[in-house]
Amino acid sequence: MRALVYDGDLRVCEVPAPQPGKGEALVRVLMAGICNTDIELTHGYMGFRGIPGHEFVGVVEHASNVQLTGRRVVGEINCACHTCRHCQLEMPHHCLDRTVLGILRRDGAFADYLTLPEENLHLVPNAMRDDVAVFAEPVAAAFRILEQIRVGNEDRIIVLGDGKLGQLIAQTLWLHSKNLVCVGKHAQKLALLERLRIATASFNDPIEAGADIVVEATGSRDGIERALELVRPEGVIVLKTTVAGVSDIDFSKSVINEVKIIGSRCGPFRPALEALALGNVEVRHLVTETFSLDDALAAFERASQRDAMKVLLRME
Amino acid sequence: MRALVYDGDLRVCEVPAPQPGKGEALVRVLMAGICNTDIELTHGYMGFRGIPGHEFVGVVEHASNVQLTGRRVVGEINCACHTCRHCQLEMPHHCLDRTVLGILRRDGAFADYLTLPEENLHLVPNAMRDDVAVFAEPVAAAFRILEQIRVGNEDRIIVLGDGKLGQLIAQTLWLHSKNLVCVGKHAQKLALLERLRIATASFNDPIEAGADIVVEATGSRDGIERALELVRPEGVIVLKTTVAGVSDIDFSKSVINEVKIIGSRCGPFRPALEALALGNVEVRHLVTETFSLDDALAAFERASQRDAMKVLLRME
Repeated sequence: MRALVYDGDLRVCEVPAPQPGKGEALVRVLMAGICNTDIELTHGYMGFRGIPGHEFVGVVEHASNVQLTGRRVVGEINCACHTCRHCQLEMPHHCLDRTVLGILRRDGAFADYLTLPEENLHLVPNAMRDDVAVFAEPVAAAFRILEQIRVGNEDRIIVLGDGKLGQLIAQTLWLHSKNLVCVGKHAQKLALLERLRIATASFNDPIEAGADIVVEATGSRDGIERALELVRPEGVIVLKTTVAGVSDIDFSKSVINEVKIIGSRCGPFRPALEALALGNVEVRHLVTETFSLDDALAAFERASQRDAMKVLLRME
Repeated sequence: MRALVYDGDLRVCEVPAPQPGKGEALVRVLMAGICNTDIELTHGYMGFRGIPGHEFVGVVEHASNVQLTGRRVVGEINCACHTCRHCQLEMPHHCLDRTVLGILRRDGAFADYLTLPEENLHLVPNAMRDDVAVFAEPVAAAFRILEQIRVGNEDRIIVLGDGKLGQLIAQTLWLHSKNLVCVGKHAQKLALLERLRIATASFNDPIEAGADIVVEATGSRDGIERALELVRPEGVIVLKTTVAGVSDIDFSKSVINEVKIIGSRCGPFRPALEALALGNVEVRHLVTETFSLDDALAAFERASQRDAMKVLLRME
């Protein structure tokens, strides 16, 4: 099969198709999305080697559960061992021995085929377009926030970052509180949110501090410092940025103000698919360009540009 | 009256006694405790000028509430305006216009007299010794943790820091879970906890990671990094260290592990006084030495020494 492989260099080449293990399905990938994490991986993040890609929609080619065969699916990316301490504590996302699709010890979605445990798969409604379903994973990451903190309809929310994830988070939290502003550096990107009637501000604007909730999704190491300035005492900062590297933080103010800081990663697919199906979270306008898998290198280059939002790969 | 005054230099001198404002009581100080924050203040923390000291027990000399006059009291240190946004949100501890006894725009307890709003005062049970009651403020800070997070009796807890506050926190949380270890650098200090049957470990010992709750009370900027190593995914880190200055933190792991980090400051006096009265939290063995107010400079010197625990000032 064709695959985009990273082994220090990035290239499209022919590799053997993956063999599903016990309880795993073989999925033919229809479409995959390039995430900032993928770009980071090709800069050395996590020491990754192999086929990247963790946002996909595909068709089940083979599964032990015959109900799945031939169905269109999206998939959760963390593959748990079900025996370690964390799995026994019902935290399979934090399995000590986990593999993660296209991120950690498991080849990913930038290929004609991938394998995943059948339990990780979610059926996609027939009415949903491929270029919508492919957003299930990042939208689930936005919904994770709602599992971790309570969002009241009076809460004042600031989302820092106008990139792909920031915009999905802004849309998702806006369903719960209209008292929300997304702060970014790119007028064109902010305009995409304004079309949805979501308030925006530029990083250079003065922004009133004292927010109940600040979500840090800038993808930059210094976002947390800005978040600490903007959150109210006893308020909550949600950290979504996973860029490796050291931040210089003066924690004394966060202690005095009794701020909560909570890391947030992968989330629930069911509410994400529902929000996409109903149009409560809109994504098609976020697609910058779609490339063939054969042109994956060009796609990565496009995705790395400052003005790019979501870049997709189509396998057929 | 006599007072310890910091104006860049630290000295004991005669100053006018404070005049209680509307709703304030005049308190004759009996005994006061030196906290690490006091030592930090005399090194420039908060830009403080005036009379430090925020841990005290005293007798009300004058109050509009006659029930208070002549009674022995301890007092909460944050004095709120009751009109600002934070006060209206029922967060008087985070009042935007607050004064803080001996810390922020209000002279403190290292003097013959102090003033505090009457609403800040708590009566001390007659049976309680002065050198126990004087610990009400730091014990309340330990109880603050129980207002902020749920502590289950199966939770594995690590307290980082064997100083005064670390020990009070260890004792307080140990009331809720016996699965607790206090980690410190000073064998003599750890021995004080072992006498109470509380488990301890040295910072140099290998410590099993994966704690449900890690409390950072080292008073050092790098404690948080150790806390991030020791906490389990979706676990909680409570930050008690308020030392100003920048910490270098790699947050990517805390995001991936979805760790909660929560700042924690002042706490409720009622459960603190109750725990002290019943002997659920023991403090007398933590007193290193007691000095007269006239010898406050020597007391500060003693409190700054590495082996010191609580140093007290007696006013009479």
